[in-house]
Amino acid sequence: METSAHPYWPRALALPGYVAGARPGWQCAGAVAAAAAALFALGWALGGAGGGAKGGARGVAKRSPARRLVLGWFLLCTGIHGVLEGYFSLRHRELPADTGLLADVWKEYAKADSRYMTSDDFTVAMETVTAWAWGPLSFLTFLALLRQHPARYILQLVVSLGQLYGDILYFATEARAGWAHSDPHPFYFWGYFVGLNGVWVLVPALLLLDAGRELARAQRGHDRPRHKAH
Amino acid sequence: METSAHPYWPRALALPGYVAGARPGWQCAGAVAAAAAALFALGWALGGAGGGAKGGARGVAKRSPARRLVLGWFLLCTGIHGVLEGYFSLRHRELPADTGLLADVWKEYAKADSRYMTSDDFTVAMETVTAWAWGPLSFLTFLALLRQHPARYILQLVVSLGQLYGDILYFATEARAGWAHSDPHPFYFWGYFVGLNGVWVLVPALLLLDAGRELARAQRGHDRPRHKAH
Repeated sequence: METSAHPYWPRALALPGYVAGARPGWQCAGAVAAAAAALFALGWALGGAGGGAKGGARGVAKRSPARRLVLGWFLLCTGIHGVLEGYFSLRHRELPADTGLLADVWKEYAKADSRYMTSDDFTVAMETVTAWAWGPLSFLTFLALLRQHPARYILQLVVSLGQLYGDILYFATEARAGWAHSDPHPFYFWGYFVGLNGVWVLVPALLLLDAGRELARAQRGHDRPRHKAH
Repeated sequence: METSAHPYWPRALALPGYVAGARPGWQCAGAVAAAAAALFALGWALGGAGGGAKGGARGVAKRSPARRLVLGWFLLCTGIHGVLEGYFSLRHRELPADTGLLADVWKEYAKADSRYMTSDDFTVAMETVTAWAWGPLSFLTFLALLRQHPARYILQLVVSLGQLYGDILYFATEARAGWAHSDPHPFYFWGYFVGLNGVWVLVPALLLLDAGRELARAQRGHDRPRHKAH
C-alpha cells in the first residue's frame, strides 16, 4: 500500500494506506453545515404546521419557538448520527484509504481528533452506539414530540443522556491521552474539537433538565389523589 | 521499584511496582459479597417499613416485593459505585503497589480485566463517571423511591441508562481489544468478567423499561384533558 504524508496528530502517527481527501476542508465543512441547517429548518417548519398537537384542533396551544427549535435539533441529530456516524461505524477501517464525500468529511474532522483515522477502540464503540441507538432514537424523539406522544419526554431524556455521557467520555478519554490527537491550531482544537463537541454537551444537558422537569410535573399530577375524601 | 511476577493478562503485561495482594481471592470476593448482601437486605427491609408512601398512612398500598427488590438494588449500587469504584477512580495509579482491602479487591477482579491495573484511559473515565455521578444518584434514587418522590422514576431511568451505556462500552471496548485483558479461565472470564458485569446490563435494562412504562403512564394521564367539554 502506498502512503502519502498526512496532516494528523501526533505527527509521528503511522497511517498505512492513507490517501489525502479529494475535496478541500471548507467544502467538507460546508456540505455538513448545509445539510445540518436544512434538517434543522425542516424540523422547525414541521413544528409550525398544525399547532401543538393532533392536527391543529381548535383550542390547542401553538407550539412555542423553543419547542420548534427542539424539533429541529432532533432532526439534525438524526442526520448526523445516522449518516455521518453511521458511515464511520461501518467504514472506519477503510477510512484512511477511502475518498468519497463522507470519507473526506471525516478526514477533515480527524485533524481535530486522529482517533477517527486509527479505529481507536473507545471511539469506534461510542460512535457505533451513537449511530445505531441515538440516531434512530433521535428520529423517534422527533416524531414523538411532533405527535405529542406520551413517550416524548422519556425519549428526549434517553437520547440527551446518551449523547451527554458519550460526549463526556469522549472528552475525558482524550484528556487522559494528553490531548495528543488534535492539531493544536485553535481552528481545529477549539473550533472543531471543543466547539462542535461542546454543542453536544450543552444542548443535551439543557434538554435533559427540560425533560426531567416535564416528567416530574406529569408524575406529580399522577401521584396526587384525583378525588379528595372530604 | 521492586516488581513481583503478576497473575494478569496478557501475560507479557509490564506492571512496574506491582505487589501481590495480602489477602486470598476468596476473602476479597467474600467481603464484597457480604457487604453487597447487607446493603441489599437493608434496602429491602427499609422498603417494608411504613408501606408504600408517606409514613404508612392508612389506605396506602403496601410496596410490592418487586419494588422492595429495586430499593435493595439501588442501595447496593450506591455502595459498589461509591466505595469500590470511588476508590478506583481516586487511586488507580497507586493500585498495583497498594495493599489495603480495597486494593486487594481490585487486584482480585483485575484477573478478569487487567485494564484496572494499568489506568486504561476508557476504564478510568467510565469508572470516574460511575463513581461520582451514578453512585450519588443511586442513593438519590433509593431515597426518591422510598419517599414516593415525583422524580423517582426519572432518577431510576437516568441511573439505569448510565449504568447500561457504560457497561455496553465496557464490553465493546474489550471486545475490540480481542478480550486480551482477561484470564481465559472460565471462573475469571465467565464468572467475574461476563457474569458480574452482565448483571449491570440485565438489571438496568429491566429498570429502564420499568421506569419508561411508569413515566409514560403518568404523562398519558397528564396529557388527557381533565374536564371533558360535553
